[in-house]
Amino acid sequence: MKRTISALARNEPGVLAKMAGEFGRYAANILSLAAGETENPEVSRIVACIEGDDAAIDAITRHLEALDTIIQVDDLSRNDFVDRELVLVKVEMDPARTAQLMQVFEVFRASVVGMGRETITVEMAGDQGRVEGLIHMLKPYGIKSLCRSGMIALKRGDE
Amino acid sequence: MKRTISALARNEPGVLAKMAGEFGRYAANILSLAAGETENPEVSRIVACIEGDDAAIDAITRHLEALDTIIQVDDLSRNDFVDRELVLVKVEMDPARTAQLMQVFEVFRASVVGMGRETITVEMAGDQGRVEGLIHMLKPYGIKSLCRSGMIALKRGDE
Repeated sequence: MKRTISALARNEPGVLAKMAGEFGRYAANILSLAAGETENPEVSRIVACIEGDDAAIDAITRHLEALDTIIQVDDLSRNDFVDRELVLVKVEMDPARTAQLMQVFEVFRASVVGMGRETITVEMAGDQGRVEGLIHMLKPYGIKSLCRSGMIALKRGDE
Repeated sequence: MKRTISALARNEPGVLAKMAGEFGRYAANILSLAAGETENPEVSRIVACIEGDDAAIDAITRHLEALDTIIQVDDLSRNDFVDRELVLVKVEMDPARTAQLMQVFEVFRASVVGMGRETITVEMAGDQGRVEGLIHMLKPYGIKSLCRSGMIALKRGDE
């Protein structure tokens, strides 16, 4: 099963190595991971999308919560969260199909961030369904390279 | 010094733990890290922004390149890259200043993705300067929570 976990961690050396180690110990595969700053300079937020046995992921969550450096762990699959991902895609540009390509960008509200002689690079932010939709629509044109940020998320509402 | 490194890695268990371990071994502090899928389902791209001694970061890069699971390492600080980051910010909404707040969102092309009774949540994608600019402008309104994806990047041009 695929689940997304968000952890607030104190900025101490080795936090990420410890977390990655926990995932490995339970044979959970990390599909994506985003670690970045928060509103508090001493705290980072790590959002990981992992694939593994349900019981194993529960065990990982409990182990992470028990670590001194981890302040809080949320299971984003179980709660109400706004989740977003950023993707950069460099796609081949065939003059005969440029208009069509631009239409795809428009539908997905993808913005052009770079252009070469044979390729065009766009960025798009959205939930995972939209990111996968864009990739799916661009595949027939020829994707030259692609970079995804991994999911980030905040709780819905005021909390 | 702050430097950003991008690595293409084969999807094997423990890659991330190994990389995080290398950073730790040289006392380089991970400021942000984004690991996500690429155009090739067997390959992930890991972009890490690290802070540390210049010589140490050079050593880390060499060590990473020598690992079997690592296909390629690029120093994004040295090359010509399109870099982008995604940020979600939940900011307090004071009715008296809503119009002002909306203007900030417009200037930074931040989109509203959620709304509570007392807060408003926006997303923005941009280079690090713009992300930091938005955070700086929103601070006086009261940032309730914040999540950054860490930088992702693709080479400029057709390559």
